[in-house]
Amino acid sequence: MEMLNDILGYKDLKIYQNDEFFAFSLDSIVLANYCTIRYRDKKIVDFCSGNAVVSMIISKRTSSNIDGVEIQEKVYDLAVKSIECNKLSDRIRMFNEDIKDFSNRNLNSYDLVVCNPPYFKIESGNKKNISPEKLIARHEIMINLNEVCSCAKKVLKDNGCLTMVHRSDRLMEILTEFRKNNIEPKRIKFVYETVDKASTLVLIEGQKNGKVGLIIEKPLILYNEDGSYTSEYACLQKEVRV
Amino acid sequence: MEMLNDILGYKDLKIYQNDEFFAFSLDSIVLANYCTIRYRDKKIVDFCSGNAVVSMIISKRTSSNIDGVEIQEKVYDLAVKSIECNKLSDRIRMFNEDIKDFSNRNLNSYDLVVCNPPYFKIESGNKKNISPEKLIARHEIMINLNEVCSCAKKVLKDNGCLTMVHRSDRLMEILTEFRKNNIEPKRIKFVYETVDKASTLVLIEGQKNGKVGLIIEKPLILYNEDGSYTSEYACLQKEVRV
Repeated sequence: MEMLNDILGYKDLKIYQNDEFFAFSLDSIVLANYCTIRYRDKKIVDFCSGNAVVSMIISKRTSSNIDGVEIQEKVYDLAVKSIECNKLSDRIRMFNEDIKDFSNRNLNSYDLVVCNPPYFKIESGNKKNISPEKLIARHEIMINLNEVCSCAKKVLKDNGCLTMVHRSDRLMEILTEFRKNNIEPKRIKFVYETVDKASTLVLIEGQKNGKVGLIIEKPLILYNEDGSYTSEYACLQKEVRV
Repeated sequence: MEMLNDILGYKDLKIYQNDEFFAFSLDSIVLANYCTIRYRDKKIVDFCSGNAVVSMIISKRTSSNIDGVEIQEKVYDLAVKSIECNKLSDRIRMFNEDIKDFSNRNLNSYDLVVCNPPYFKIESGNKKNISPEKLIARHEIMINLNEVCSCAKKVLKDNGCLTMVHRSDRLMEILTEFRKNNIEPKRIKFVYETVDKASTLVLIEGQKNGKVGLIIEKPLILYNEDGSYTSEYACLQKEVRV
């Protein structure tokens, strides 16, 4: 069912969602707030942009242009509708295209790639009772981690950055694929639901042809022991951190 | 100056230290508590064992035999003195030897290697006003990360584990060297001084010829906002967690 929702923490942003496809989640909000947007970054691209929630939040942090690429037509249609509804069509352009084709047409042209890719390998994860749209968004059916990194390498300018959110248990593979594509990991932030649980999500930013030098940043812990939001998570829901 | 101290949290362990060499630190205590000691692990070796603090703490967690290898004779002498003082000579054997030589003599024979290696590359870190003993303990003068991992690979039995404490900013290199030596990273724990600071230390455990599958475990945060110890750090100082 199609619905028009608020984006948590963003009073002036509305988003069209369809529960048969997928709903934006914490991952997108965290990613959109985490990526480094340098003053000189004029061109930003959002890979696997889905309903464009990441692009829309980023548009509140910068006046630069943002391109979103989404392979699934129905999801792309919703993204375009949301962008129009928020009067952001002059800032965010959507492309209904395979990232692999998009990348071959846009070599060395972006300052920043952000990506919330499919998290699961084709053979893993729960596939029962989910729509084809959700399946494609969650599983590496149309694109895998290796391809995402190789496409990022193609579209990034020298010293441009790739910022990704992914599952912590795939850290080894993420780091390997970043390096294999000359994207040097520079910042990593682990997300822990509580201080007593293993990390499920990781944020990672790398720089194309960047120098070696990595920081494991302060953790993002979401909930206090009593179940209330930690101040950092509450803050993330209130406003865009520039 | 040589002194006989308590090991923090271990009422029944004394340690001889010399402030011209180095003093055991948090790193050693955390490492000795972090490593997985499986029931079947009968042979344990402590690389770069220094004053044998890691070996001595581990001796409280298991009845298995522990070998410590320390290249610096003066430091080795202190370790032997501490082990005798604690009546642990039947459990812990010290070797005053280069790990590279030790490893060539002890192929495929250990279940677990623990290591608190020199943290700094030769060209980095502060080298002013420190004794030769401290310099060798802290800097990769006698052995580097690549050599530590390659020696661990040699001495480990199939499926044996290497557990290491190191600086978080060298994570990429640590993971690369583990994998290069067929030691698959299985568990990583980041240590944060407070929840608001970047991680300085990382604990990592890998398995020789192990399957791919990594957990980023719950963080170890040392201090609360008010400067008091977190419960996990306080606990670490009180007793051995078996």
